[in-house]
Amino acid sequence: MTIQESTTARPAGRPRSEKAEKAIIDATLDLIAEGMGVSELTIEAIASRAGVGKTTIYRRWSNKEDLVVDALATLKAPLPPLAGESVRDDLIILLDVMRSEAGQARSRCVMNIAMSDADRYPRLMERFMKRAVEPRKQAMRSTLERGVASGELRPDLDVDLAMAMLSGTMMHNTKWAPAGDLPADLAERIVDAAMTGIGPQG
Amino acid sequence: MTIQESTTARPAGRPRSEKAEKAIIDATLDLIAEGMGVSELTIEAIASRAGVGKTTIYRRWSNKEDLVVDALATLKAPLPPLAGESVRDDLIILLDVMRSEAGQARSRCVMNIAMSDADRYPRLMERFMKRAVEPRKQAMRSTLERGVASGELRPDLDVDLAMAMLSGTMMHNTKWAPAGDLPADLAERIVDAAMTGIGPQG
Repeated sequence: MTIQESTTARPAGRPRSEKAEKAIIDATLDLIAEGMGVSELTIEAIASRAGVGKTTIYRRWSNKEDLVVDALATLKAPLPPLAGESVRDDLIILLDVMRSEAGQARSRCVMNIAMSDADRYPRLMERFMKRAVEPRKQAMRSTLERGVASGELRPDLDVDLAMAMLSGTMMHNTKWAPAGDLPADLAERIVDAAMTGIGPQG
Repeated sequence: MTIQESTTARPAGRPRSEKAEKAIIDATLDLIAEGMGVSELTIEAIASRAGVGKTTIYRRWSNKEDLVVDALATLKAPLPPLAGESVRDDLIILLDVMRSEAGQARSRCVMNIAMSDADRYPRLMERFMKRAVEPRKQAMRSTLERGVASGELRPDLDVDLAMAMLSGTMMHNTKWAPAGDLPADLAERIVDAAMTGIGPQG
């Protein structure tokens, strides 16, 4: 600490770096959740809501779009570690992450509002997808391919269609579900139903 | 026609009943597509955009909410007739309706905006679901139950899960698809993939 810093009066309770970052992210999500479209959102409004100066924001994010991508990404749970043994077990883990995110009404609301702006901000949504969605898709794709190679899945599997089937079935359940209303074994039931199919052969 | 009517000057090209109705529905959807939330929408704005008087609107709809429900319902294709023979064929027809709606960018945009207002207008969304979504769900449920009874589907089928699987897989495909970019046989591929399953037994 320099003499300059130690002698400058600082406001009491001034948030330190990490605390400020969290306040900025929360302020961004709050404003979006309150219905503020990405177009209306300003660094000024975020700074004011977070109780920080604009320079504190600009030290971390060079523009609004970078900040929104980071803020939206915090709504997604991190990719869980996979055991890499049973393909069925790994698929259940991957789907269960989607279930765990479903109950969060605020998160769903924010995503809805952000998505309604997607046409106006294609680059933002593209970056968000790349950051928060692509790693999951890649993990599911590798797991399915591993299953084809190991014989745990059918040899002629349409991997893209299988991904749509697993994620889509979970999405269909999470989309309209009241918070926390999904059965704990939903991911397991979806994976097993997808494995055996709905035809008479099961 | 009374003498009064025949002698009253009428503006040229004044829309007749059906034409006015279409203009009102279109104006409502246009305003929503331009980003006007349901809360901001007014009968005045709709009348002005449609080029009709407010009374013309009130003759048909007693309030804004009724009008929005009717307008949103026009975005959904009507329920197609089912042959009622092969369960596989009927499921394909039911899913293909969802595909046919996917390419309409305007329709998707309107639904996104309307859905982002859903938390503020739960009764409106509930009525829309009942009007435009429930009949489809009911048709799919009956078809699946018929398949269980006839042996075309597995005897222990979880009907709700099967519905989520079929609709969810299609939704997952239509959600991000550029307009008209979906393969013509997508519904057929989804139904067949769901019937045989992704497991090694296929």
